[in-house]
Amino acid sequence: MKPTIALIGSGNVATNLGLALKKQGYSVLVVYSKTLANAQVLAKQLKATATDTLAAIPTNLDLYILALKDDVLASVSSQLHVKGLVVHTSGSVPLQILSAYKHRGVFYPLQTLTKKTPIAFNTIPLLLEASTPKDSQLLHQIASELSNEVLEVSSNQRQMLHVAAVFANNFTNHLMGIAKDLLAQSQLPSHLLDELIQRTAKQAVNHHPFSVQTGPVARNDMETVSTHIQLLQQNPQYRQVYELLSQSIARTLQEKKV
Amino acid sequence: MKPTIALIGSGNVATNLGLALKKQGYSVLVVYSKTLANAQVLAKQLKATATDTLAAIPTNLDLYILALKDDVLASVSSQLHVKGLVVHTSGSVPLQILSAYKHRGVFYPLQTLTKKTPIAFNTIPLLLEASTPKDSQLLHQIASELSNEVLEVSSNQRQMLHVAAVFANNFTNHLMGIAKDLLAQSQLPSHLLDELIQRTAKQAVNHHPFSVQTGPVARNDMETVSTHIQLLQQNPQYRQVYELLSQSIARTLQEKKV
Repeated sequence: MKPTIALIGSGNVATNLGLALKKQGYSVLVVYSKTLANAQVLAKQLKATATDTLAAIPTNLDLYILALKDDVLASVSSQLHVKGLVVHTSGSVPLQILSAYKHRGVFYPLQTLTKKTPIAFNTIPLLLEASTPKDSQLLHQIASELSNEVLEVSSNQRQMLHVAAVFANNFTNHLMGIAKDLLAQSQLPSHLLDELIQRTAKQAVNHHPFSVQTGPVARNDMETVSTHIQLLQQNPQYRQVYELLSQSIARTLQEKKV
Repeated sequence: MKPTIALIGSGNVATNLGLALKKQGYSVLVVYSKTLANAQVLAKQLKATATDTLAAIPTNLDLYILALKDDVLASVSSQLHVKGLVVHTSGSVPLQILSAYKHRGVFYPLQTLTKKTPIAFNTIPLLLEASTPKDSQLLHQIASELSNEVLEVSSNQRQMLHVAAVFANNFTNHLMGIAKDLLAQSQLPSHLLDELIQRTAKQAVNHHPFSVQTGPVARNDMETVSTHIQLLQQNPQYRQVYELLSQSIARTLQEKKV
């Protein structure tokens, strides 16, 4: 028999994870959100019960998944009194935040999840951590049905992976936004950079990015760098980013990190 | 009859452009490099003559393409005495650097070109500028055979486009390098971020990146931000980048730029 599951949370991670679990035949019996309407939206998709009351969640399920914002994890988990395995889905919170539970774990999907665009869950790396071998086994069993990439990591490794993901996703996204904003400011069509963006990602996957660094700093073309800084006179925020990242590239190349 | 061409330069841009021209049936008759051996490598591929002497370049060709580093454009172009159209391939140098020539132009391929991995040239946007309508027509004729995306832009627009490309390519590449370096430092496999990297690029193409910004700053999760800054204590360079980009994201979200 497949384990029975409660989803605590109804945001991006809860929604994507819930739909992936249902697709693999798992029974998500309950969806909790402090806002009942939000719980109901997801519960309907999962054919589950919706609740906004933690005490109403059955205590005898196999797995409780806390898919919540980091800053409410401590308070919600302290109000949950259950017997099964309790896991959170956070990249940056240590396992020990769940120390009140004998059976505790982490089930962290490494992706940028939005409700808008559902994602092929099997391509998302799932990073696991558990307090006992039996709990680890249960998480592995579920994770390996959801994803092709399952890895057990320590809390420290997971935290550093999350930092790395902020660089690889959140920060790169911001820079591509700046790039498109600069095009718009110059009355240029925003799709002009699309091929370059796709190729940059492909290259970063096939090589170590430090080894394929190009651009004015990489070819020591300081005249172009200072022209660019001049051109960003009207955008002090962007100019500051340009200057710091140029310095950082120069430093990385000097130190021959690859 | 197709126009006859001389390639001044034998680096990444000259190589990729030369091969694309040859594929479309253009005659590149001469390849110049100050290092004869370099000129010979490319000339052989193009069935052209190699030279390291500017005075040896025939003066009656239709098009002279200066595919050179920005900082040598002025000196090389001052030594070239020819009658045809002279263009450079730089993103950041104004057309006026070629003011000694009545027929001058710019032929700027917007990509990160390396000799190692040849690229489907037809996907590269070509940005053109020319001093006379007839020269513009010649450049358009050639460019439209090489690429699906041809656009005439002013020197100012091209310069800003180049700045934008530095953000979208050089800087994002550096950040992905930092991400992979952090994985290596934590003994984690470097491919863990590959799906995320590809998805980030796809998302930035399909949406304005500012409108799909995720991460701790976007959800105002300052506890995670300060955890991350703590984790980067041993990497002052990366910590500084983390702090500035977090501030920049916060500012962009406050100003509701999208």
